[in-house]
Amino acid sequence: MDRMLVNGVPAEQISVLDRGFAYGDGLFESVRFIGEEAPLWSRHMQRLAEGCRRLRIPLPDVSQLWAEAIEVSRHLAHSVVRITVTRGVGERGYASLPRPRPTRVLAAFAPPVVVSESLDQGLALRMCELRLAEQPRLAGIKHLNRLEQVLARAEWSDPAIAEGILRDGQGRVISATMANLFARIDGQLLTPAVDRCGVAGVARAEVLATCPQARVGEITLEALLCASEVFLSSSVRGILPVRSLGERTFQVGSLTRTLQRHWRNLGFWMEQAG
Amino acid sequence: MDRMLVNGVPAEQISVLDRGFAYGDGLFESVRFIGEEAPLWSRHMQRLAEGCRRLRIPLPDVSQLWAEAIEVSRHLAHSVVRITVTRGVGERGYASLPRPRPTRVLAAFAPPVVVSESLDQGLALRMCELRLAEQPRLAGIKHLNRLEQVLARAEWSDPAIAEGILRDGQGRVISATMANLFARIDGQLLTPAVDRCGVAGVARAEVLATCPQARVGEITLEALLCASEVFLSSSVRGILPVRSLGERTFQVGSLTRTLQRHWRNLGFWMEQAG
Repeated sequence: MDRMLVNGVPAEQISVLDRGFAYGDGLFESVRFIGEEAPLWSRHMQRLAEGCRRLRIPLPDVSQLWAEAIEVSRHLAHSVVRITVTRGVGERGYASLPRPRPTRVLAAFAPPVVVSESLDQGLALRMCELRLAEQPRLAGIKHLNRLEQVLARAEWSDPAIAEGILRDGQGRVISATMANLFARIDGQLLTPAVDRCGVAGVARAEVLATCPQARVGEITLEALLCASEVFLSSSVRGILPVRSLGERTFQVGSLTRTLQRHWRNLGFWMEQAG
Repeated sequence: MDRMLVNGVPAEQISVLDRGFAYGDGLFESVRFIGEEAPLWSRHMQRLAEGCRRLRIPLPDVSQLWAEAIEVSRHLAHSVVRITVTRGVGERGYASLPRPRPTRVLAAFAPPVVVSESLDQGLALRMCELRLAEQPRLAGIKHLNRLEQVLARAEWSDPAIAEGILRDGQGRVISATMANLFARIDGQLLTPAVDRCGVAGVARAEVLATCPQARVGEITLEALLCASEVFLSSSVRGILPVRSLGERTFQVGSLTRTLQRHWRNLGFWMEQAG
């Protein structure tokens, strides 16, 4: 029952000299599987390809990644397969080898428990103090440099708070720590741009492709607090209504329900704990 | 001849589930040893302690780190010991365990070759295109999120260019990719602040402690090009004069020579390749 493969071989360890460990020099994807189905697989592979292109890491063979994802997850009815791709083992120093040999790690986990209540009535959120730094060269892709998210998530320990909202240095709302954010403001469904900071979530891409009326645009905190409907999108957890942000409460809206139905039609059953 | 220890045990691998690999959730120090001497050891430990405090990672026992550093480097007359401290093995997700058990990795390497010509006549530098993002929560400490440096170092492959100069989003000069920068401008020795981006190098700290006339202050590109003397400071490579930056050439100055003598007095002999 091997739930981990390193470069195709059952293993639970990687070299201390791997640049993923030395510098966070790599990318990852967390892919939700229901049995042997991963409805957002092609979007994950699109983002991974874009990340590899931007970091100049050779893209692994996608059909091989699929075969290995099936192998590590086959004993789980529900799973999250984390795919990590790094620039590989390197010498000390930031300079890359002329022909890097990427490391690929596939590991299957039981998915996080998403209770029906969260999907029905929504999540309680807080505002994070940490402001995301603006780095266009790294924005959008799912790279391994995640200390900002670690620090933001460490701001609270109350289990009643499910997520925190992150802003950039100018106070613009960008996302949650582990999910993208959508808000219906003056009738318009908006999600923040992720070209200066933040991650271009695959669930966000699915929402944008599904809702022709959705638009990428700036959301100030003031605008968010005036939204008629707010939800988070996550490839692992689905479409999550937002019930409150600090003192402000929201009603679960019709777009949220429509997208939750779309998620079920894709084949996702998020309430299952795996 | 074990040149690597993971949590005190000879090993060359770490868990795939280590948060250092998953998120770059940790810190490192690259300590130059000459035999069993590491003249800047206490400054490295000060910075590591500050990094652990800021990331809320328990600081490993410093005397144990010293014993392990000696153990991994004892077969090398000259070495660089990389000490990596991570938040340890964790579950999937950014949230930390309530009581993390840090991972510590010590690995000894032959130091980079610093040819006498570099120390005598100086290095050729270029300006990097990449701009450092401003993140005060991570600035100064030597964390494992180093993709900016990897991308900046990938901008050139000409071996005649030794280093690249990094600026922030507002065009202020911050550092080189692997070293801090000092410039004598209008008679004043300056080094950029590292409270919004950049790393507070231990060699930089040694220079600031040694030169009472040195000051932390803003350096624009225009000011740098007017400097009478420019050098880089690196705990691994020492005090490196800058001979040119693009088309602009510099003379090696008297402060550079004084600091190189100070480095020798500390016990460093950088020309040795180990």
